[in-house]
Amino acid sequence: MPKSRAIHLASRPTGMPAAANFALVERDVPDAADGEVLVQNLYMSVDPAMRPRLAVDQPLGEVMGGGALGRVVQSKTDAFKVGDLVSNGMGFREYFTSDPRGLRKLTPDPDLPLTVHMHALGGTGFTAYGGLLHIGALKDGEQVFVSTAAGAVGSVAAQIAQIKNCYVVGSTGSDAKAAWLRDEVGLDAVINYKTQPIREALAAATPKGIDVYFENVGGDHLEAALSRMNTLGRIPVCGFISGYNSGGSPVSNLFALIYARVTMRGFIAPDFMHLYGDFQRDMGGWLKAGKIKYQETIREGIADAPAALIGVMSGENSGKMLVKLAE
Amino acid sequence: MPKSRAIHLASRPTGMPAAANFALVERDVPDAADGEVLVQNLYMSVDPAMRPRLAVDQPLGEVMGGGALGRVVQSKTDAFKVGDLVSNGMGFREYFTSDPRGLRKLTPDPDLPLTVHMHALGGTGFTAYGGLLHIGALKDGEQVFVSTAAGAVGSVAAQIAQIKNCYVVGSTGSDAKAAWLRDEVGLDAVINYKTQPIREALAAATPKGIDVYFENVGGDHLEAALSRMNTLGRIPVCGFISGYNSGGSPVSNLFALIYARVTMRGFIAPDFMHLYGDFQRDMGGWLKAGKIKYQETIREGIADAPAALIGVMSGENSGKMLVKLAE
Repeated sequence: MPKSRAIHLASRPTGMPAAANFALVERDVPDAADGEVLVQNLYMSVDPAMRPRLAVDQPLGEVMGGGALGRVVQSKTDAFKVGDLVSNGMGFREYFTSDPRGLRKLTPDPDLPLTVHMHALGGTGFTAYGGLLHIGALKDGEQVFVSTAAGAVGSVAAQIAQIKNCYVVGSTGSDAKAAWLRDEVGLDAVINYKTQPIREALAAATPKGIDVYFENVGGDHLEAALSRMNTLGRIPVCGFISGYNSGGSPVSNLFALIYARVTMRGFIAPDFMHLYGDFQRDMGGWLKAGKIKYQETIREGIADAPAALIGVMSGENSGKMLVKLAE
Repeated sequence: MPKSRAIHLASRPTGMPAAANFALVERDVPDAADGEVLVQNLYMSVDPAMRPRLAVDQPLGEVMGGGALGRVVQSKTDAFKVGDLVSNGMGFREYFTSDPRGLRKLTPDPDLPLTVHMHALGGTGFTAYGGLLHIGALKDGEQVFVSTAAGAVGSVAAQIAQIKNCYVVGSTGSDAKAAWLRDEVGLDAVINYKTQPIREALAAATPKGIDVYFENVGGDHLEAALSRMNTLGRIPVCGFISGYNSGGSPVSNLFALIYARVTMRGFIAPDFMHLYGDFQRDMGGWLKAGKIKYQETIREGIADAPAALIGVMSGENSGKMLVKLAE
C-alpha cells in the first residue's frame, strides 16, 4: 500500500489561478484488489483546457482531473500486466488503484521518445489533426492561420498545414517562440501578438486572406481573423484561452461570418475518434521523417503541478507542458 | 421614354440611417433598344440586410440596390414579352431599361396573392427554408429558437420548424408582434425582448435547451442562445441586425461553442440555389394549406422608400416590408 501525493482543487480561482487555489495532499492508496491494477503515474499532462474546468466541472477537495501516463505496478486482472504503460485520465496524482475501465494500454513506438505519446502522437496531436483536417476540412494549398502556434496543439496544427502544402501564418506571445516558429518550423509568417497589433499584423501577413483559422485564443485574435476570412472559410474552435481567466473575450465583428459564409465549429477530440487509427499512422510517420518538430517543457515532481498549470496559462511553456513524476 | 424617379444614396449613415442620407432623383429612362426591355417596377423589397451595404458596397450617388418585382412595358427581345412579370435586383426605382440578364420571369401562382412571391414564396422565404433545413440541418422534433420571429424571414423559419414538429420559441420586439406569434402562429413560447431580459426569458422558455438557433440578431440574443445550446447544436447565421446600426454587438461567451460543439455558419441564399425547386414546391403547398401565415407592411410610392428602410431597421414593420409603386 503506497503513499500517494496528489493535487486537490482547494478553491475556485477568479481570474488567473494562484497557488493558494490548490492543495498538496498525501493519502494511502489501497493495493490492487481482484480485477484491479495499481498504477504509478510517470508523466502528467498540463493543458490550457484544464482552466475552464476549474470554474465548473472539477469538484472541490478532490484530485485535479487530467491526462496522465502511468505504469502498472500491481495487477490482479488479465487486462494488464505489471510493467504495462497505461494512458489514463486520473490527473494530478502519483499512484492510483483502478479497474481497467478508463485505462488504455500504450505500446510505445521504439523509434520515438516516450513523451511524444503525450503530445504530438497523443491527445494533443490528435486534437490538432482532427480539428484541422476533419472539423476544418483543410484542403491542399489553402491559406491557414494558427493562433498559439508554438503551443502543444497549435504547433502540430501549423505543421500539418505545412505538410498539406498550405501557406501558414502563426501567432505566438514571445520573441523566442516566434524565432522557433520562423527558424525551426519554417512558417511563412509569424506574429508576436505582444509586440505587434494583431489585426494589422495579420492583415499584412495574409495577402490572400484566410481559408482556415485554427482557433485557440478568441477575443482580438478571432476579430482579426474574421476580418480576413475568405468565402466559405472555416474556423475550427479548439480553445478560447484569452477568455479562460477573464471570463469572456468579447468579439464584435461576427457579422463577417455572413459575408464570407464562414463556418465556425467548436469541437473536442472524441468527436472524431474514428480517425484515431489514421492519425497514429500519419503522425508516427511524420514524426519519424522529422516533419513535425516539437518542444516540451517538463517540470519535476507532483508539488510543481499547480505552478505548471499557472505557467501554461501565462505562456511560460514552450510547447507541451508535462510534469514528470518517475522514470 | 418615361420619366423615372429613384432613390439614391446621398451620404453614408453613421448609426441609424436618416432621411437626409437619401435623395429622390428624377431621370429620363431610354426606350428599349434592340435586345432590351423596359420594365416598370410594381413592388420593391425592403430588408434589414440592406443596411450593412449602405456602409460599403452601395455606391454613393447611385440608385439604391435591392430586390423588386416589375412588369415589362416594352420588349425588343424574344426573352420577354410585354406584360411579363420579372423579378429583378434593380432596387429603388420606378422604371429601368435592361438586357435580359439579371431578370427572372415570374409566373405567379393564381391561387396566391402576388406579393407572397416577394416574401414567403420568394427570396425571403427561401432564405428561411435553406437556412433552417440545409445550413441548420434541422431534424424533426428538435428544440428551435428563432430571433425576430415576427419578421419576414424569421416568421417563415419559425413556421417551417413547426411543420417539422419542433418545439419553437420566438423572440420579437413588441407586444402586438408577440400576440401574433402566440395567437395566430401558435409558437410554443414567445419572448418580447423589449420587456423581458432575453437571457432569463430564453432559459425559462427552453427547458430542453436549443438544438437550432436561427440567428437574425446577434449581440445579447446570441449570448443568450449560446448559453442554452445542446450538444452538436447548429446556429445558421442569417443576420446580425443588432449590430447593423451600432457597428458591432459584442458577444462574450463564444467558448460555449466548444463545450456543446456547436456549429455556427453564416450563409446567403445563393449558397443553396440547388434547393430552389424543392422550396417552391414545399412552400407553395404550405401556403395553400394555410400552414404558413404571414404579415405585410406595404408603403406606397417611391418617395416613401427611405422611410420604409428606416422603419424596417427599427421594427416598425409587421412581417415583410414592401413599397408598392404601381398595380
